Amino acid sequence: MTMKLTMLGTAAGAPTPERGHTGVVLSHEGRVFLFDCGENAQVKLQEAGAKFMRINEVFITHFHGDHFFGLPGFLFSMSLAERTKGIALYGPRGAAVEFDRVATMGHQQLKYVIESHEVRSGVVYSTDRFRVEASPVEHGNVPAVAYAFIEEDRFKIDRAKAAELGLENSPHLSRLQMGRTVEHDGGTVGPDDVASRVVPGRKVVYSGDTRPCGAVRKLAQGADVLVHESTYSATDADRAKEFGHSTTVEAATVAREAGVKRLILTHISKRYDDPDALLAEAREVFPATDIAFDLMSLEV
Amino acid sequence: MTMKLTMLGTAAGAPTPERGHTGVVLSHEGRVFLFDCGENAQVKLQEAGAKFMRINEVFITHFHGDHFFGLPGFLFSMSLAERTKGIALYGPRGAAVEFDRVATMGHQQLKYVIESHEVRSGVVYSTDRFRVEASPVEHGNVPAVAYAFIEEDRFKIDRAKAAELGLENSPHLSRLQMGRTVEHDGGTVGPDDVASRVVPGRKVVYSGDTRPCGAVRKLAQGADVLVHESTYSATDADRAKEFGHSTTVEAATVAREAGVKRLILTHISKRYDDPDALLAEAREVFPATDIAFDLMSLEV
Repeated sequence: MTMKLTMLGTAAGAPTPERGHTGVVLSHEGRVFLFDCGENAQVKLQEAGAKFMRINEVFITHFHGDHFFGLPGFLFSMSLAERTKGIALYGPRGAAVEFDRVATMGHQQLKYVIESHEVRSGVVYSTDRFRVEASPVEHGNVPAVAYAFIEEDRFKIDRAKAAELGLENSPHLSRLQMGRTVEHDGGTVGPDDVASRVVPGRKVVYSGDTRPCGAVRKLAQGADVLVHESTYSATDADRAKEFGHSTTVEAATVAREAGVKRLILTHISKRYDDPDALLAEAREVFPATDIAFDLMSLEV
Repeated sequence: MTMKLTMLGTAAGAPTPERGHTGVVLSHEGRVFLFDCGENAQVKLQEAGAKFMRINEVFITHFHGDHFFGLPGFLFSMSLAERTKGIALYGPRGAAVEFDRVATMGHQQLKYVIESHEVRSGVVYSTDRFRVEASPVEHGNVPAVAYAFIEEDRFKIDRAKAAELGLENSPHLSRLQMGRTVEHDGGTVGPDDVASRVVPGRKVVYSGDTRPCGAVRKLAQGADVLVHESTYSATDADRAKEFGHSTTVEAATVAREAGVKRLILTHISKRYDDPDALLAEAREVFPATDIAFDLMSLEV
């Protein structure tokens, strides 16, 4: 059950040839999800080897340009590639207006339907395998959310027990795995009949732009990976506060308090030449930290 | 009097890591002009060593996404960089609506004013040194124009004659150079009094997306450089016709008939692996042809 995280762009504010605008790709069991869609995301997706036609859901954290100016190109290039399947776009308050504006730019017509979702708090998308939750964060006076991708806990099927009950290779197995009871052979079979133990689901949280805040700390409790913005060095804490962003140390403190396994810092201001210095600041507070770079990829 | 042309992106339709979306930069005597602004233009400008804050005029050929989806990022990044000087945006019919939409995307406010110009035909911008002309072209049912950047002819000042008249280092010289008569020393001095000969101005023409057409042929008469779209190989002439584009041979024929000095083919479809094959098709008709690549730069 592969789960892979890829950072498309990792810049704060103005992009550079080294750091493009924000985008985070999560691949999970053959599906691909995009969180934020900064300018040039469609090309970065190619460079990352991700097929954009497999993306059916895009989650935008807020409507500052560096987080969504890649949407027009992303959407219209899929149309040019003859996409007909609809796409669901998620974003905070105001999203419907923004998505509509993007979808009606210029003289082309999208060949597929856009489904706009304005998210507030809680589960915004789910299947029986996973759910996506949103939580409002603090980014000045702009509506902004963080997102969590949360795998549901699964029962680990004991193949021998399943075989005893005549359930080898049965489509019932995936239902039992997700905790459901099924009808079989004139009776019912529950997870306890075939499962040895519960495998906890994985969790990946992406903060978007925010001051360090309780919402992210709560959303990220026990997460496998927290991708947190870290626009500023700890030496520029005043500036971070003024512009509604976080420093290295503030992000690391959120990670420590949330008890996450791993922290990835992103949204790095171009004012800093030396990512190692930023990393050192964060690692003093939370050792399991790395600084994102464009096209960085990791297994969760 | 340097005049430099730089190709930012050279793709048709969907961009790739090798060919980005369309953008042409013209640097002339310290000023910088942008023609079309495909996605990621702001980063390509950095890579080309062009300072975007020096651009005060942007000329859009038409409102298909690959020609203007870089505008939002370009405009807002300048705002982030504290630009306060207004910018003039030019485009064909419908431009005012499109520019307004771009300028109001998301939750930011531009810190400077946008002046929208809908262009039709003829001179759309001029100084006493040069003018920019537009001409409607044929690109399906979408309003689209080609642009010409035309230097005015200049009188070549004879320094000795100027000195005789007491005009060395005089601000009058640049006026005389452009053909004006000035008042000096109680009388008048005209270009014939101080100039030895006329230096013809240079001309660069950019077709935008178009079928081969008389408008470009006329606009490009005797041009130093014609940048012409060449989306398709000559072997796909039917397709070029169907989608309102040009083939290599069609572009080369326009160049030959217009008597230009040099032809640059751009807007190259990713369906072709071998640019040399495309080039060979064009050179059979017009030998002074090159195929553009991203960040290609040439002195005019």
